[in-house]
Amino acid sequence: MVTATTADSSAPAHIQAYLAAVDDLFNMELRSEPAQVQQLVNRVARFRGKMLRPSLVLLAGLACQESPRPLGRAHVVLATVVEMSHVATLVHDDVLDNAQIRRRGVTINHLHGNEAAVLLGDLLISHAFYLCSSLESQTASRLIGRTTNIVCEGELLQNFRRRDWNLDESAYFDIIYRKTASLIETACRLGAQESTRDVTMIDALARYGRHIGTAFQIIDDVLDITGQPATVGKSLGTDIDKGKLTLPMIHFLATAAQTHRELLIGLLESPEENRVEKVRQLLIPSASIAYARRRARELVDEAMETIRILPDSPARATLLDMARFITAREL
Amino acid sequence: MVTATTADSSAPAHIQAYLAAVDDLFNMELRSEPAQVQQLVNRVARFRGKMLRPSLVLLAGLACQESPRPLGRAHVVLATVVEMSHVATLVHDDVLDNAQIRRRGVTINHLHGNEAAVLLGDLLISHAFYLCSSLESQTASRLIGRTTNIVCEGELLQNFRRRDWNLDESAYFDIIYRKTASLIETACRLGAQESTRDVTMIDALARYGRHIGTAFQIIDDVLDITGQPATVGKSLGTDIDKGKLTLPMIHFLATAAQTHRELLIGLLESPEENRVEKVRQLLIPSASIAYARRRARELVDEAMETIRILPDSPARATLLDMARFITAREL
Repeated sequence: MVTATTADSSAPAHIQAYLAAVDDLFNMELRSEPAQVQQLVNRVARFRGKMLRPSLVLLAGLACQESPRPLGRAHVVLATVVEMSHVATLVHDDVLDNAQIRRRGVTINHLHGNEAAVLLGDLLISHAFYLCSSLESQTASRLIGRTTNIVCEGELLQNFRRRDWNLDESAYFDIIYRKTASLIETACRLGAQESTRDVTMIDALARYGRHIGTAFQIIDDVLDITGQPATVGKSLGTDIDKGKLTLPMIHFLATAAQTHRELLIGLLESPEENRVEKVRQLLIPSASIAYARRRARELVDEAMETIRILPDSPARATLLDMARFITAREL
Repeated sequence: MVTATTADSSAPAHIQAYLAAVDDLFNMELRSEPAQVQQLVNRVARFRGKMLRPSLVLLAGLACQESPRPLGRAHVVLATVVEMSHVATLVHDDVLDNAQIRRRGVTINHLHGNEAAVLLGDLLISHAFYLCSSLESQTASRLIGRTTNIVCEGELLQNFRRRDWNLDESAYFDIIYRKTASLIETACRLGAQESTRDVTMIDALARYGRHIGTAFQIIDDVLDITGQPATVGKSLGTDIDKGKLTLPMIHFLATAAQTHRELLIGLLESPEENRVEKVRQLLIPSASIAYARRRARELVDEAMETIRILPDSPARATLLDMARFITAREL
């Protein structure tokens, strides 16, 4: 059993101690001899807000047990590896987006420059693989490696298709599966397969992860349009600014009157300073925001349905709550 | 035994077929479904010039055999993993350096932008770990992970100490061990330990790798000052431009007359366009270039001495030749 020194009071009681152990392991693994590197690493701790992905590893692990027992070190290691991989992508994303704010703090790139941010992201992903290879079997390393391949391809695809106003729903869903849902799916799969060999249960949890991961990204994209920077706590309007079409915009371009369609593209292509604000004003009252939210809700319903085959447990209840929370968040 | 479809005529005969297999595996592993990602990956093939690191994996493997026999798939996999890790650092280095030319070709960042280059570097390192975790044991994954941790720390340290005119030799050697020599050391160690359990032989090869790796970086830094862009085939003067002190500059600052010292720092800090050329003109005739070359030669001598304990073999002869070549290169 894992002992813990600190606890996150907002986490469900049955995984609090494990999340604290993840926190400790994250910091211990990243301890760095050069003092300046250590300072940079310390700053990245600020980014670890919700701990969604490590929570999913742990909850999937608990939900798949045949009889309740404490999780072992492998689950904590896997949860930490997934979190490190995720934080690495956040650091590089902020470089790509020129983002200045993340979790109400100044981003690494804004504070230390793009160069340090690129290198810090590299350091995090390297540490993720290093830690993962401390496990006895290669299975998790292989799955994490395959997933980060997919995440990188998704980010590259998204980058290539910026300012492509013909991007359709199917291409959008392919991109967000790769860049976001794939790692959340893997978090669930890793946690599950460390607890059971029952393929039906493992696949159910992986499917749950894929669906809530996709819904999560849709809502993130909606909030990039509808959110208030003060409440969301990170740079907003970056999709509009960077010419990345998201579900509400794709729906708007496919369904709105020709004049509105031309107005949106004109604004997206315009060099004027307040174009981001104008795009938001055009989209917020439209049916396209409601459409995107509905699509996310459908995915959440499907995710919840999927794990109803699991035995009833506090972990399964929490997984159901987490799914519900995804479409409920307005911030 | 590994079969190969193409061969690099400049490689030593006894590893030509293996290097061709590395080439094939590199391309096969990076095959990417999205066509635009595949195009970007194809461009990166241009960067794989000397194949120094995979050659070292293979030669170390051959040099440590008790009796001559063909290398197996593991050596080819390890050589490919090391090459992928190296190419990833090249792609990110070019972003950090704003470099425009690499191996006589336009860099990824210059052609496709920094964003695609950051993501392509991430994709390469992810594929390196994915491929490495296809091996039966975690030993290589763990060593590769530890090494890439060290490489990232070295790059971060170098970045932090830019424009620090008090950087001394010991800090310089620490940085170049981390950012360059550590991966070359690991290439040799991986190749050796896949062939033998004799720790003396493995350590000798690792030491050889560390020494030639350090010498290699010293010569690279000398050529950044003395080389001609047309013959070296990559952007030059970037250390001067980026305020990175290298061995010739550190020696110059420690030994030249006060007026010369002030002149160099003044130029390094100057915003004027032709300051890089002026620094080169100041350093090239100085004793500091000769000093740096001598330090590199001493390391090469030590590296050669180290592997004389190995049984005589064509592979050992090639390793000795490769060490000699490092300080001989003028381009």
